[in-house]
Amino acid sequence: MTITVPFKQVDVFTSKLFKGNPVAVVNFLDVEESSITQDTLQSIARWTNLSETTFLFKATDPKSDYKLRIFTPMCELPFAGHPTVGSCQAYLEFSGRDAVGNIYQQCGVGVVELTVEDKKISLKGPPPKVMEVPSAETSDYEGSLSAEFFQKPMLLDVGPKWIVGLMRDPQSCYELEPDFSKMKASTIKYGAIGLVVAGKYPGEDKYEMRAFAPGDGVLEDPVCGSGSLALAAYLQQLNNYESNYEFEIYQGRRLYRDGKVSAKIEHLGGEVEYFIGGEAITIVNGEISV
Amino acid sequence: MTITVPFKQVDVFTSKLFKGNPVAVVNFLDVEESSITQDTLQSIARWTNLSETTFLFKATDPKSDYKLRIFTPMCELPFAGHPTVGSCQAYLEFSGRDAVGNIYQQCGVGVVELTVEDKKISLKGPPPKVMEVPSAETSDYEGSLSAEFFQKPMLLDVGPKWIVGLMRDPQSCYELEPDFSKMKASTIKYGAIGLVVAGKYPGEDKYEMRAFAPGDGVLEDPVCGSGSLALAAYLQQLNNYESNYEFEIYQGRRLYRDGKVSAKIEHLGGEVEYFIGGEAITIVNGEISV
Repeated sequence: MTITVPFKQVDVFTSKLFKGNPVAVVNFLDVEESSITQDTLQSIARWTNLSETTFLFKATDPKSDYKLRIFTPMCELPFAGHPTVGSCQAYLEFSGRDAVGNIYQQCGVGVVELTVEDKKISLKGPPPKVMEVPSAETSDYEGSLSAEFFQKPMLLDVGPKWIVGLMRDPQSCYELEPDFSKMKASTIKYGAIGLVVAGKYPGEDKYEMRAFAPGDGVLEDPVCGSGSLALAAYLQQLNNYESNYEFEIYQGRRLYRDGKVSAKIEHLGGEVEYFIGGEAITIVNGEISV
Repeated sequence: MTITVPFKQVDVFTSKLFKGNPVAVVNFLDVEESSITQDTLQSIARWTNLSETTFLFKATDPKSDYKLRIFTPMCELPFAGHPTVGSCQAYLEFSGRDAVGNIYQQCGVGVVELTVEDKKISLKGPPPKVMEVPSAETSDYEGSLSAEFFQKPMLLDVGPKWIVGLMRDPQSCYELEPDFSKMKASTIKYGAIGLVVAGKYPGEDKYEMRAFAPGDGVLEDPVCGSGSLALAAYLQQLNNYESNYEFEIYQGRRLYRDGKVSAKIEHLGGEVEYFIGGEAITIVNGEISV
């Protein structure tokens, strides 16, 4: 039986139409989750052809505002960055809440805390794990980039496992022309989702960043949330900040986008926490037949 | 300035939700075409991430019902099959016309005639050109398919230039595992958009078909209109039908789709004309901010 439910397609990490990273959001808040099969969710996500399609259901956790299920065209994910920010924006509009403050999202990694203020939606990332990258592996990645890292890369596990490394400056990051066949082979061989490369703007708390995941079917992600969390954790490791540090990450220029992610590293007692956020704009607003 | 106009995302060449080939259709029928820049159209098409996004404008040709502009994420196309069928369905819904009969679409190749009957929308393809494929080129394509053609392939120019060839049967078509790097190199070298391969079901006027266009960024097209026209013209060349011939083309099974194209070869005096058609279902219905 076909039902029709509310639908939005939201542009994430930008304030300019069509310049961010899109996510399709299907509103199943008034539909029993058990009545929708896994196969239906996967078919929708395959059909939208976006990197992620999400489904809002009623939360089963009493503390959470909603439950989110996140699908790529190939599989379900426990968590993802830009889909979380875009789906929160859609939730606020669907529910008519003009929220300022915290929103709690139940999803595959547990409950994710979001903060809404000044049109910006931020999320607290899961605690990252940092690992060394052996030099043979580093050489393979450098081969796929046809460039050397300016700072030693590390493996950052923030849910997905990203290899993160700095280039000399923003321009050398922008100009990279990766060999995606080589990169795909290397990331699959070593078990990473892909590469995050960045270059710092001199004298500013601002980075140019690119995220590549050819092994996952995404040559370059226009504006990457989990990659931004990985970059923040990498910079903490590299620079050993002892107090809070905030910076901006510009992304997507090579794909004609104009993405902007605000990142924050917060020190709370001995703990370090990572936040990313940005604006999200609903571009398509309507209904979907399912 | 942001404006909001009607929007649909239509599933083409199927009667089952999410089992066809999607096209996004933006309704600019009430907007001056000169007020919308090429860059805006291209940005929208890049953002939807679908193989094609189309834009309905008022026709400037007096015979036509509407003017259609068709964009891939990379460029504008003069014509394309599934976007034409899906956009006609969207036009009928937007305009409230419950058409049975002919609809005329003004587009980059001129005026395309469509016929609407029994929920099915058919189009008359542009006159195809047939060319031989040299044997060295054939070997390269066979290398990329890791399989030999059962019938000699030909180059069919139906707007896009497809290499078309028959495999022994539907199963050997279904089972092909192309080497897309090799195929991309060959199609670029010889100047074709891609490969259409098909296998006939014994005793039935029914073919299993797949269309590959890795050089165009589409490894496999779920359900391909111009490829279906190319297959019809190839079969006419191969079998020299002297009267009308109708057949069905099944597509997309390897991509979890269930596409069905009805094809017709019509003999009118000395002329041969090619028609393809199928059903189209609107899945997303709403508005888009531009």
